[in-house]
Amino acid sequence: MAEGITPRSEDFSQWYNDLVRRAELADYAPVRGCMVIRPYGYALWEQIQQGLDRRFRETGHRNAYFPLFIPHSFIEREAEHVKGFSPQLAVVTHGGGEELEEPLVVRPTSEAIIGHLYSKWIKSYRDLPVLINQWCNVVRWEMRPRLFLRTTEFLWQEGHTAHATYEEAEAEARLILDIYAEFAEREAAIPVIKGRKSESEKFPGALVSYSIEGMMGDRRALQMGTSHNLGQNFAKAFNIQYLDRNNELRYCWTTSWGVSARFIGAIIIVHGDDRGLILPPRLAPIQVIIVPIYKSEEERSQVLEAVARVKGLLGGSVRVEVDDREEYTAGWKFNEWELRGVPLRLELGPKDVEQEQVVLARRDLPGKEGKLAVPQAELLREAERLLEGIQRSLYERALRFREEHTHEPKDYEEFKAAVEDGFALAPWCGDPACEKAIQEETKATNRCIPLDQEPVSGNARCIRCGREAKERAVFARAY
Amino acid sequence: MAEGITPRSEDFSQWYNDLVRRAELADYAPVRGCMVIRPYGYALWEQIQQGLDRRFRETGHRNAYFPLFIPHSFIEREAEHVKGFSPQLAVVTHGGGEELEEPLVVRPTSEAIIGHLYSKWIKSYRDLPVLINQWCNVVRWEMRPRLFLRTTEFLWQEGHTAHATYEEAEAEARLILDIYAEFAEREAAIPVIKGRKSESEKFPGALVSYSIEGMMGDRRALQMGTSHNLGQNFAKAFNIQYLDRNNELRYCWTTSWGVSARFIGAIIIVHGDDRGLILPPRLAPIQVIIVPIYKSEEERSQVLEAVARVKGLLGGSVRVEVDDREEYTAGWKFNEWELRGVPLRLELGPKDVEQEQVVLARRDLPGKEGKLAVPQAELLREAERLLEGIQRSLYERALRFREEHTHEPKDYEEFKAAVEDGFALAPWCGDPACEKAIQEETKATNRCIPLDQEPVSGNARCIRCGREAKERAVFARAY
Repeated sequence: MAEGITPRSEDFSQWYNDLVRRAELADYAPVRGCMVIRPYGYALWEQIQQGLDRRFRETGHRNAYFPLFIPHSFIEREAEHVKGFSPQLAVVTHGGGEELEEPLVVRPTSEAIIGHLYSKWIKSYRDLPVLINQWCNVVRWEMRPRLFLRTTEFLWQEGHTAHATYEEAEAEARLILDIYAEFAEREAAIPVIKGRKSESEKFPGALVSYSIEGMMGDRRALQMGTSHNLGQNFAKAFNIQYLDRNNELRYCWTTSWGVSARFIGAIIIVHGDDRGLILPPRLAPIQVIIVPIYKSEEERSQVLEAVARVKGLLGGSVRVEVDDREEYTAGWKFNEWELRGVPLRLELGPKDVEQEQVVLARRDLPGKEGKLAVPQAELLREAERLLEGIQRSLYERALRFREEHTHEPKDYEEFKAAVEDGFALAPWCGDPACEKAIQEETKATNRCIPLDQEPVSGNARCIRCGREAKERAVFARAY
Repeated sequence: MAEGITPRSEDFSQWYNDLVRRAELADYAPVRGCMVIRPYGYALWEQIQQGLDRRFRETGHRNAYFPLFIPHSFIEREAEHVKGFSPQLAVVTHGGGEELEEPLVVRPTSEAIIGHLYSKWIKSYRDLPVLINQWCNVVRWEMRPRLFLRTTEFLWQEGHTAHATYEEAEAEARLILDIYAEFAEREAAIPVIKGRKSESEKFPGALVSYSIEGMMGDRRALQMGTSHNLGQNFAKAFNIQYLDRNNELRYCWTTSWGVSARFIGAIIIVHGDDRGLILPPRLAPIQVIIVPIYKSEEERSQVLEAVARVKGLLGGSVRVEVDDREEYTAGWKFNEWELRGVPLRLELGPKDVEQEQVVLARRDLPGKEGKLAVPQAELLREAERLLEGIQRSLYERALRFREEHTHEPKDYEEFKAAVEDGFALAPWCGDPACEKAIQEETKATNRCIPLDQEPVSGNARCIRCGREAKERAVFARAY
């Protein structure tokens, strides 16, 4: 157990906070609900950005930047949208020393401002599709903040696309959902459920919302990304029209989708333990940390020489750093890099120099089991093999954990027990009133209606009210 | 001359605006003073980001993210700082539906909030130096906005470092200045003057400010980057202290430095012409645009096959795109990509297929002079050679232009004529009152005191007041 970190079993929420701050991922800001992302946390965010950005580009999207400030009247144009976001707005009333004629909203999301601009830019079918993404900060006033998971200001990407037909918009929303799920599973080693949001859980103003949902280490659900088919709701509110091939004016079909730095919170919670973070190798800012070990001055120069050579062996293919600080002992460094979740530690002492080997220690298997001596000649191949193995093992462990805590209850009593333990997959009538009653009675919300599910049998009944159920939903307590 | 673009000679300012909007670099936002950076403009910004970010990393800096909102009381802690920024602040007074107890300032720059956090993070000499950069948006209320050059919200990077000694802070400020200058000259092909700001032009709260100044196409000066040695001013205001090796508590020495998306404005103005943008190859999002030329269906398939092959020849080394849109003619595309400033156009028609060649056309040399047929087998080498040549030629042209419009006036009459034409390098007494009088009489401001200058002779006299002058300054009308 690492110093200054509350054990998970004792207080999960405190364990999380301790970890975020002790590993120097983030810190509270002096403004309520706001946070600072420190260099190590930001490096993790940059890895996430690169991985998603590459996928967006490969599917034809381009980045742009839209303004932070939105006239309040814009937000009001889409009725559901303003209802959903009004309670969370930060409002600028003064600028340049004067009171503004119209207050400005700090963007909580950018459908309104982007809708306005798309209506200026899109004239003809030749301009479609418009496939734009932006990386930016947004603000939603938050009364119960949690570092990364829920903060007043947060970093995210928001994609906004416009299409000629419903089918294209729907295909785009689903394509992005697939990208999010593949990224979460392959890069972050977090299994997710792809699903449709219920009417009461969907994005304010959307026709249909999709999400990926992950199970956290405390068995609660976390929404890790959303993708919305906005239908023509925003196109009509902002007059986004195009001339089709027959020269007829038509409204566009639009989508929006986003993943935020909350994703970092998921990585911490899903993989971390009482010793600290465990970062999935594909996203770890440092994949291998080299800790030189020596006592005498003579050993020091021998070891550091070997360390430089060994670093060179890995450098081109693996993100590697050397901790050669003189002010700290090797033991202190072991703990520090365990706390920071570096997947592989490479130890190199005088004996290793002599035997032309190094010792590799897996972060995910502390103790002897995860330690092995490797000839320097085979280092790169062995390090890559181990990193692959850690990545796979983290995913499998998270999947097993989710499966162990996912239930298919037969009645409402079983359902109540199921959501105490984790996820409940159950037939549901589709009525928002029933969803609300479930929440009041069990604290569990409808996370999503999984896309990948067997059709329910003809006489399936809602787990709570017993009326006809057409599909199953996942219910869980959520972040 | 491109359609919809006012000639430079007719109205320089209108030429600039037309160009930014017609080339789809940016657009006005519905909020006064704000702008949207469109995908082509943002791609240019991403090139700039990558180039600077790599240099920051190579010199030991790491990225982080600090909050958008700063309590108003923080800004007030450094006396000069609050005086400098107060008139430009945007203020959030309401959040989450309620009036805030303390209004929040939308960051105009982040010395205050970062100073507060550094005071928490820095304990000992072991924590120093702290070398952090952030890429973000900032807001300074702007009454006379110009796209990219001066907008209420703008994108930039701001570096903030803390050191144990004055010498280290000074070396850092100078290192960054050198990075900025090298980047401007090598990547953006814009010659700059490195200099120190006068007392009245320096950053509010700085000990000393440095800047790089470029000459724009209308012979006015543009400050393209600044680097400040903040001394102990912010360390004292925010209590940033460390225990030194003797266990004595000392104040840190801090720096800050920034380059903004205004840099894009400089690239447009310095290199563009009446046909559109001319982007320096090293920063151009598209370095080579391929335009297939064909009439019949048979020609089409032959040509497109060759285009795919030719694109493959360049793809790994050069940023290349194919404009194979069917809705536009080749002639229309030539104009479009000239307008967008792509350095090299590659034309490929049936005759070229037959002769296994392509035609390359340089954007910086329109007409026959810049056109040549190149065997496909030599394409990559030739394209790289031409891109290098364009890069060099743009720099040389900009340098020649600056030299032609830089003068060393002998008296105040010559000085007045000099600043009508461009830059005046003249001895100056150092008195802010004299600087102010010069501005009132000639509209020229003191841009900087060049670092690289011969010592003035013992009896040198201020160009305006005739008192003793210890150094020369550059005066010019500025953006």
